[in-house]
Amino acid sequence: MSKPSLARGTRDFGPSVMVKRNYIFDTIKRTFQKFGFQPIETPTIENLSVLMGKYGDEGDQLLFKILNSGDFLHHKGVRIINDEDLDKGEKHILKKISEKGLRYDLTVPFARFVVMNRNDLVMPFKRYQIQPVWRADRPQKGRYREFYQCDADVVGTDSLICEAEIVLMLQEILQNLGIKDFTIKINNRKILSGIAEVIGVKGSEVPLTVAIDKLDKIGKEKVEDELRERGFSEESIEKLQPIFEIQGADSQVFDKLKAWLKDSETGLKGIEELEKVWSLVQSFGLENANTQLDITLARGLSYYTGAIFEVKANGVQIGSISGGGRYDNLTGTFGMPGLSGVGISLGVDRIFDVMEELGLFVENQSVTTKVLLTNFDAEAEKYSLPILKKLRDAGINAEIYPESAKIKKQFDYANRKNIPFVIVVGSEEMQSGELTFKNMTLGEQEKLSIEQIISRLV
Amino acid sequence: MSKPSLARGTRDFGPSVMVKRNYIFDTIKRTFQKFGFQPIETPTIENLSVLMGKYGDEGDQLLFKILNSGDFLHHKGVRIINDEDLDKGEKHILKKISEKGLRYDLTVPFARFVVMNRNDLVMPFKRYQIQPVWRADRPQKGRYREFYQCDADVVGTDSLICEAEIVLMLQEILQNLGIKDFTIKINNRKILSGIAEVIGVKGSEVPLTVAIDKLDKIGKEKVEDELRERGFSEESIEKLQPIFEIQGADSQVFDKLKAWLKDSETGLKGIEELEKVWSLVQSFGLENANTQLDITLARGLSYYTGAIFEVKANGVQIGSISGGGRYDNLTGTFGMPGLSGVGISLGVDRIFDVMEELGLFVENQSVTTKVLLTNFDAEAEKYSLPILKKLRDAGINAEIYPESAKIKKQFDYANRKNIPFVIVVGSEEMQSGELTFKNMTLGEQEKLSIEQIISRLV
Repeated sequence: MSKPSLARGTRDFGPSVMVKRNYIFDTIKRTFQKFGFQPIETPTIENLSVLMGKYGDEGDQLLFKILNSGDFLHHKGVRIINDEDLDKGEKHILKKISEKGLRYDLTVPFARFVVMNRNDLVMPFKRYQIQPVWRADRPQKGRYREFYQCDADVVGTDSLICEAEIVLMLQEILQNLGIKDFTIKINNRKILSGIAEVIGVKGSEVPLTVAIDKLDKIGKEKVEDELRERGFSEESIEKLQPIFEIQGADSQVFDKLKAWLKDSETGLKGIEELEKVWSLVQSFGLENANTQLDITLARGLSYYTGAIFEVKANGVQIGSISGGGRYDNLTGTFGMPGLSGVGISLGVDRIFDVMEELGLFVENQSVTTKVLLTNFDAEAEKYSLPILKKLRDAGINAEIYPESAKIKKQFDYANRKNIPFVIVVGSEEMQSGELTFKNMTLGEQEKLSIEQIISRLV
Repeated sequence: MSKPSLARGTRDFGPSVMVKRNYIFDTIKRTFQKFGFQPIETPTIENLSVLMGKYGDEGDQLLFKILNSGDFLHHKGVRIINDEDLDKGEKHILKKISEKGLRYDLTVPFARFVVMNRNDLVMPFKRYQIQPVWRADRPQKGRYREFYQCDADVVGTDSLICEAEIVLMLQEILQNLGIKDFTIKINNRKILSGIAEVIGVKGSEVPLTVAIDKLDKIGKEKVEDELRERGFSEESIEKLQPIFEIQGADSQVFDKLKAWLKDSETGLKGIEELEKVWSLVQSFGLENANTQLDITLARGLSYYTGAIFEVKANGVQIGSISGGGRYDNLTGTFGMPGLSGVGISLGVDRIFDVMEELGLFVENQSVTTKVLLTNFDAEAEKYSLPILKKLRDAGINAEIYPESAKIKKQFDYANRKNIPFVIVVGSEEMQSGELTFKNMTLGEQEKLSIEQIISRLV
């Protein structure tokens, strides 16, 4: 007998949580499709040659690696590892016994997919992908080793319509989920480059943005300390001050930024791109796009080259629920350079937490079965089966309690399963053909024909 | 630069295949829900202590095992493997460097889930689960290392209504998918036990059923040869002859069986159970249930204790598309004995192949975007964005070609992406407000207002 347990950092999802999660997935999926994105799926198992070296040293460490199948210690009967190999350490051994790993994100597999299918894909290619990913992180509250990502990307065009559409799409998804108060923060990597240029640290964008990115969490002083530690001069830190001060309405921020970055061509290009995105969003006729220009937004990732997005739900202490941006070299690492694209990723676990905290899951989002038929004896059971079929034929999710049982037990079953209606079939009902139809929420009941019940339920 | 490749036995699913697969998944899911089944999901990664020993020695071999994360060679700085360990072979090493594996089926994780949540589950518990599983099998045509299973099970009741509902559910799923000609073969493990009893080999049900199970594939003579090899006497093989001869309408088969198994209480119980299932299916009012009693059906799996199901699509050379049965000890291995249940598993890859071969995917099952707006210049683009928003607000999947391009290129994009309608927005259209609405299938076009177009599309 083995003791049942979950692997560390993994979760089971029971029915009530699943129904809510599916509601989120379905809403995201429907909106992605409404905007012309098409689904793809890539395998869980990828060759390590595809995954390694794509996420930095830390990422390589966090990849789950799969042991070669069969006798991984021998090749054609000869042992492939000896004591000297062991002395060389686990990285050396790893190469001999493991060739495959688990998907770490959806971006690298997508890049691989694009390169392998480049001759068949319709460009610009708009894909969405909703699948789990795995990371051998230390599990902690809200951080799991297995979790879903929901990504949408357009590749093969640098049209800024794509950025504007991402803003619209995020809007629609969050509104459909009932999350009304949120902010879509936007920046442009070129603005960050422009800032590096005007403060005299051109080429050091990465350490600069890594430090700036932490502003929200650690505050201005500690960001400055970190910059000093990373070797930035007092002069450049002094020149950086406007970044902490430029705020206000978007149009004002744009004007102040233009003045600050007037000597950086790249910086001005970044501003121009964002202004174009703003204008496109307005052209769509959106009154309030919930957008906010945030020139400190960097999202750490060094591969963004244009717009950078981040979405926060306001009024809850939960991190960003979505992030993304434009990149210009998705597939370079697989030998297909220069492919530009822009994408967004939504975090289902955080969206779930936001919705729970704000009480946004309405009652019928936890329902799958709509009506239960009682079962008191063989005669009633036989009488009920054609009724059950009629309900289902009308498209109503329905079930019969599978065995004869006391009415209390059957009502309890309906309540615990969140089934909102029960049809009681007793001897009186069988005689008259009028069934007892009970609303479990209100506790009310009435006698109705099956046709009347169906018209109430559809 | 790394060369992009797929891991052996795995697949990418591009948009056109995904849309068809999702159609199958959605149909199955909708029907499962209509019958009162609720979704659960379990993690991809399970502890090997949960998985090992559940699928026989061969299954243990076919489990994908995950290397312990971090430095798997050392524990608290001390190397945990030496040359002597290597001499002891890969099974010994495995225990030291791997604690987790990939889900091999949905049944064992379901059993673990039931045991770990036994106090919270509403019994009888009806769950469905649609997730991929992994097997380190040798890849070959139609056999993959990563593939989806779609399972529905009821546990916590031995009511035969569950068996009857499985028949109905299979019917509805296949009919909704458009698969009209199919057979649901049914047997009962107790009948097989009864046969073993009357031919004098009680207790040897497993080797007997393993051999009989192959009748379809290898024929009567070879089954008899196999029985001889497995040590069955000529006398018992002689007594087994009725199994090859009993056929005809279900009622006749039942009668002949009753005569043959009259001395086996277990056998008669199996017949009684099946007759009850037949009668329940009829009570539902089904005229043609596509069921067929097949007393040679065994499905190899030794854990079935009651009904056994298998579904074949007729007219195609593709193996069974679904199978399942009743078991009475799902969770015994995890210390919770005596839990009875019945379940069914559908194979999406085979259903996909059947539907492709029979041409059952209708055109709109490969469509995600319904209408494309053209894009000739900045002015037309700006004019089109509010139109695009109107279409989407009406619930229509719509997109704009993201950059200015020649009309041929844009039509080509629509055609290759299977987008059935294109709205052309040129200078004439902008002046008149009448848009050119082109049906890409028929090649016809007409001038319509956006409101007229929307009413055509919804």
